Amino acid sequence: MAFDGSPHRLRIDERSDEPAYQQIAAQLQAEIEAGRRAPGERLPAIRSLAAELGLHRDTVALAYEQLGQSGYVEARAGAGTFVRTLRTPVATGARRDESAAANAGGTERTEASAAGAAPGRAGDIVLALAPPVERLIALENTRPRYASGDDVVALHRLIPDPRLYPVAEFAACFEAALREEGPALFSYASPEGDPRLRRAIAERFRRYGIGAAPEEIVLCHGASQGISLALRLFTQPGDQVAVEVPTYANVLSALAGHGLSPAAVAMDAEGVDPDALDRVLARPEVKVFYTIPSFHNPLGTTTSLARRRQILEIAARHGVPVVEDGFELDLRFKGQDVAPLAALDEVGLVVHLYSFSKSLFPGVRVGSLTARGRVLEGLVALKHATDLSDALTLQAALVRFVESGAFDRHLARIRRVLAARHAALAAALSTEMPAGTTATAPEGGYQCWVELPFEVDTRDLLADAARAGVVFSPGTLFMPDARPSRGMRLSVASVDEAEIARGVAALGRVVRERAGRAPGAGRTAGMHL
Amino acid sequence: MAFDGSPHRLRIDERSDEPAYQQIAAQLQAEIEAGRRAPGERLPAIRSLAAELGLHRDTVALAYEQLGQSGYVEARAGAGTFVRTLRTPVATGARRDESAAANAGGTERTEASAAGAAPGRAGDIVLALAPPVERLIALENTRPRYASGDDVVALHRLIPDPRLYPVAEFAACFEAALREEGPALFSYASPEGDPRLRRAIAERFRRYGIGAAPEEIVLCHGASQGISLALRLFTQPGDQVAVEVPTYANVLSALAGHGLSPAAVAMDAEGVDPDALDRVLARPEVKVFYTIPSFHNPLGTTTSLARRRQILEIAARHGVPVVEDGFELDLRFKGQDVAPLAALDEVGLVVHLYSFSKSLFPGVRVGSLTARGRVLEGLVALKHATDLSDALTLQAALVRFVESGAFDRHLARIRRVLAARHAALAAALSTEMPAGTTATAPEGGYQCWVELPFEVDTRDLLADAARAGVVFSPGTLFMPDARPSRGMRLSVASVDEAEIARGVAALGRVVRERAGRAPGAGRTAGMHL
Repeated sequence: MAFDGSPHRLRIDERSDEPAYQQIAAQLQAEIEAGRRAPGERLPAIRSLAAELGLHRDTVALAYEQLGQSGYVEARAGAGTFVRTLRTPVATGARRDESAAANAGGTERTEASAAGAAPGRAGDIVLALAPPVERLIALENTRPRYASGDDVVALHRLIPDPRLYPVAEFAACFEAALREEGPALFSYASPEGDPRLRRAIAERFRRYGIGAAPEEIVLCHGASQGISLALRLFTQPGDQVAVEVPTYANVLSALAGHGLSPAAVAMDAEGVDPDALDRVLARPEVKVFYTIPSFHNPLGTTTSLARRRQILEIAARHGVPVVEDGFELDLRFKGQDVAPLAALDEVGLVVHLYSFSKSLFPGVRVGSLTARGRVLEGLVALKHATDLSDALTLQAALVRFVESGAFDRHLARIRRVLAARHAALAAALSTEMPAGTTATAPEGGYQCWVELPFEVDTRDLLADAARAGVVFSPGTLFMPDARPSRGMRLSVASVDEAEIARGVAALGRVVRERAGRAPGAGRTAGMHL
Repeated sequence: MAFDGSPHRLRIDERSDEPAYQQIAAQLQAEIEAGRRAPGERLPAIRSLAAELGLHRDTVALAYEQLGQSGYVEARAGAGTFVRTLRTPVATGARRDESAAANAGGTERTEASAAGAAPGRAGDIVLALAPPVERLIALENTRPRYASGDDVVALHRLIPDPRLYPVAEFAACFEAALREEGPALFSYASPEGDPRLRRAIAERFRRYGIGAAPEEIVLCHGASQGISLALRLFTQPGDQVAVEVPTYANVLSALAGHGLSPAAVAMDAEGVDPDALDRVLARPEVKVFYTIPSFHNPLGTTTSLARRRQILEIAARHGVPVVEDGFELDLRFKGQDVAPLAALDEVGLVVHLYSFSKSLFPGVRVGSLTARGRVLEGLVALKHATDLSDALTLQAALVRFVESGAFDRHLARIRRVLAARHAALAAALSTEMPAGTTATAPEGGYQCWVELPFEVDTRDLLADAARAGVVFSPGTLFMPDARPSRGMRLSVASVDEAEIARGVAALGRVVRERAGRAPGAGRTAGMHL
């Protein structure tokens, strides 16, 4: 065995922003990959390693769990944790620890999913899963897995940068809430959530021209739950949902999981194509239109005001409700706000989705749905029947964070960071990518859409890119029919300017090599789609 | 106006367990009900009342919000908060602030729902809601509303007693988690949740003979979300779900919301009737069986070991999965554990639901689902497509709470409290209720089922009971076909021995009066159903 047995090579950098357990996991993973810890080898006991490093044993246990999830080690009851025979790498030559479906959708599984790694036991009865669940599993299995690691620039990741999380300020709000409200925070909330937070959101919405009363705002468990609830309000399995091409990848998962199918609507530079929308909404099986008018995912573009009015006119004519996903509403870093559909809606057509996941951090798990009349009534009943209520602790902390002004200060900082990162991205694209490449010019949000000037399925570039040290989201993930695409989504959410420069340089090399073109040809032909 | 204008009559009792905002709301409500604050009258400004009482303005605002939700006051933008004309009382002569649906289901809406109080606006388009949502709204509207208030003994409430919440210990775990793990806690979790907590649950499950691996346990947003996910795994709208008669009221809501209908299976003293189960599971439209074998809700009874084996044999023969709701699994206060279905299951038929909502408090919003093979794979995909992940902060705090031993200490305390309260309940029933009344003899959990010895729909007793100072859950709420019932569920969750004695005495008076019998006749004929 190559095992030298000494855990002394593990070091924790206390000034690092990376949590200790991740540092441990990364170092052990590197040792395993380098063959310095061989298959079958026992890792140091959790208790002794924790003592040696001066850490809580949970921290070490978490590192081991993460390695277990990634397939590097396995726990054997009563015997310890052992290095496993390495799995066959998937897709990119790296470990399968992040789901493209999640990444593409603006989120990310931070460890291996049990999906695909959950054998039944000998003798188990094979149970019939509902058809939508079978379709959902199949969809997830078509999606690529990404490389990861410190050496890979994560341009695919649509998760706000943990280096920017206002943890101390938020923790103070948390502790104040616990101190001031005590046991009441640990009972059930109403299904609608904390009335103070609903009032605070209503007040903030007025900046955008949305005049909803607090009673018309229902808090939910992240915007993702909001999407799921909004779909259930209007649809049954077999129905269709109009979506833009391209659209948010996780909406495609949500559709599959609810037995729904997408009805594709083409886009142009102004937003969704009005004639196409008119045709699609005329079909009786299409029950709702899902759209992301501001800082579109994956495009990064913003639907014009004139087009928004057209969308509402068309939807009203067909009596089809519109789910407006405002997940990055607060993240404009240049230009002027364009009124949300919910602000322009005079006939109660729009269900508006809002979220703190991208503007603050996902872990707060607070989003909201805005609706009125019978739709609101159905929404409250559905939220209650689905999971009763959300966690008041998080809502009570958040309302303090918002009302103290800390949220607006944080937003100001995030917007400055976003402007700088998007500028760095545009600059890097113009110097590194081959001539003829196009990129959108987002005025808000994290994502930018790049199209290559030659025929290629960008999914086929993923493995080379990962080896070169960069990952991105291939365009096909966002296509309702999963068609190949020469587009790709690049996100600046969790990468700084230096990382962007490094990542795009690597991407440019891979693309130019594939294109068979000379390096350094780059100048983007245009900055919009 | 009867307004004396002085807020000095409001007093905050700092030693009370009731939060300050509730104290304010209750006092203002009493004044409004007594006519001492008349319709149209302006309440003191939030800022000045907060200053006078030495409270944060949020606290006062929350009290006003609660009054607004209950219909007592209304806010007018820029003008202040005004007393409203009182609404017509509903059902019990008290304010409509709690939904029977929620209460009956073991939870409670702590404020008025927007449902039923959400008029559209003039000119709004009427949108078509999905048929299951319409059915869900209709179901919710059939349910009675309860009286509440400090003077009413809440024997309907299946929410752990806030006076017993280990808030300080849990808050310390919270703060330790924030301190030790920092930003990582604020990103997305994997859909399965914190691996340490899954491991801790797996370890605890071994006490009950459940041998699931941590990888087979998926955390969810309370057991209610677990029920919703479990139903979606196996069903599509139009399908049927076998349920016990009676059963958990919120499961009936969940079925309606998913377009499913219940297939009723009768029970006897041992649990569900095997012949009836066999007949129901033979029907192809019945896709899953939902059961609560331990500390049944609403009965409080426990299915015998022999019957459990029969259930599994029958389900296996028909290839129908079983959802076992173990929501009070940890709450046995006397007698011996009976192996959960999940422990007896040798063929992977059982999806096991577990929750911390009743054993710790609901606000932690952590439950779990245990499954394997393809079912597990589908579950993870569905959880991810539904709301991505739960809040890591709460999970990280909970794992510390469990691993430190605080949870077991808390459970020991809760079990002692439960034993004493159930003894008080049995004693009060035997002296206060008319002869011939039967009551179950629970060995765990909060709820007990009482049947009256004469023909009556106990729902018709609710209003009299509320006036006499007690509320309970009428049996009809738990009937899949909403048939009238002379049964009622009494819960000791949030009432102490003195309150139980007072509540049952009041209930006894109402029942005896209705029965036309002489008071004091009481001796229960039997303590089981």
